Amino acid sequence: MSANRDIEALIDMMARLPGLGPRSARRAVLHLIRKRALLMTPLADLMQQVAATARECLNCGNIGTGDICEICASDKRANGMICVVEDVADLWAMERSGVFKGRYHVLGGTLSALDQIGPDQLRIPRLVDRVDSENVTEVILALNATVDGQTTAHYIADQLEGRVTLTSLAQGVPIGGELDYLDDGTITAALNARRKV
Amino acid sequence: MSANRDIEALIDMMARLPGLGPRSARRAVLHLIRKRALLMTPLADLMQQVAATARECLNCGNIGTGDICEICASDKRANGMICVVEDVADLWAMERSGVFKGRYHVLGGTLSALDQIGPDQLRIPRLVDRVDSENVTEVILALNATVDGQTTAHYIADQLEGRVTLTSLAQGVPIGGELDYLDDGTITAALNARRKV
Repeated sequence: MSANRDIEALIDMMARLPGLGPRSARRAVLHLIRKRALLMTPLADLMQQVAATARECLNCGNIGTGDICEICASDKRANGMICVVEDVADLWAMERSGVFKGRYHVLGGTLSALDQIGPDQLRIPRLVDRVDSENVTEVILALNATVDGQTTAHYIADQLEGRVTLTSLAQGVPIGGELDYLDDGTITAALNARRKV
Repeated sequence: MSANRDIEALIDMMARLPGLGPRSARRAVLHLIRKRALLMTPLADLMQQVAATARECLNCGNIGTGDICEICASDKRANGMICVVEDVADLWAMERSGVFKGRYHVLGGTLSALDQIGPDQLRIPRLVDRVDSENVTEVILALNATVDGQTTAHYIADQLEGRVTLTSLAQGVPIGGELDYLDDGTITAALNARRKV
């Protein structure tokens, strides 16, 4: 390649982002170089700043700019509910819906015997502590509907049994979903959990 | 979203890169935040540096770090051949093959009556100048096999007629290509340009 070494190194580094390969990284870098002043410089500045300030909340594992994230720091969110999610991306998805007003607990993954991930790697002891210390009345298990996710949910349910109300997200037909395109498992779950109209 | 404003702004900005949407930008930013020290900070530094130094070569339009790019500055590449490409990405693709040892001329697009792009917007006058000043013997038109690309190739051929040898890339079956998956146009072109074995 004839571009200088910095540009090549930048392409290599961009190609390590999830969702980008060598080809799309080249395209993205060319786009950035064409919009040096409008996009590349501000993006680099912002990245620098986030890299310097972003950290995991010591309480819940969410990403924020302080030792304690905005949600854990806000008294308004202390409604006695904790929503347990696998990942910060899941937390963001829940927050976009805007319907949950409580606090979160980010596990950082799921239990996995294969990958040797046990409860201690997943902030589960910290969750048990929080249930006692934050006057929690309900723990919502918003884990993915995968085998690992459900295993983890069962483990947490065992740990917290009798201490709080434990709930999980409803399973059924997604809003806007067409039955014809749904898998058998979802239809079965939706039928079993049918409600009176 | 509960992440602080810088993180949200970073996601918005990443989503403006080609090939990334809001969803993949969130994924990329989460990945960057998790690898702050190893990936995010070096990436931001490199981006800053490329933004400060990258510029278009005044001679050929390639992207480099000086007023004249490495290829135009190198005497080794002055073999009397100029390869005309639409875009820097095409130049990079040619360079990856490593087979062309001459210089390039990046048009920066194709002639387009609809988008009001004429010869002056495309460095075509500069190409005509270079043919005279750089002792060019052959101009290879490596433009895309699209209508606009071929229109542009014809226009350039008209401008340079009689002054230099004009060639274009061969059209035919791509290496590793299976006839069954090729379009009719390519098969027709390959058949018309058939060679003795």
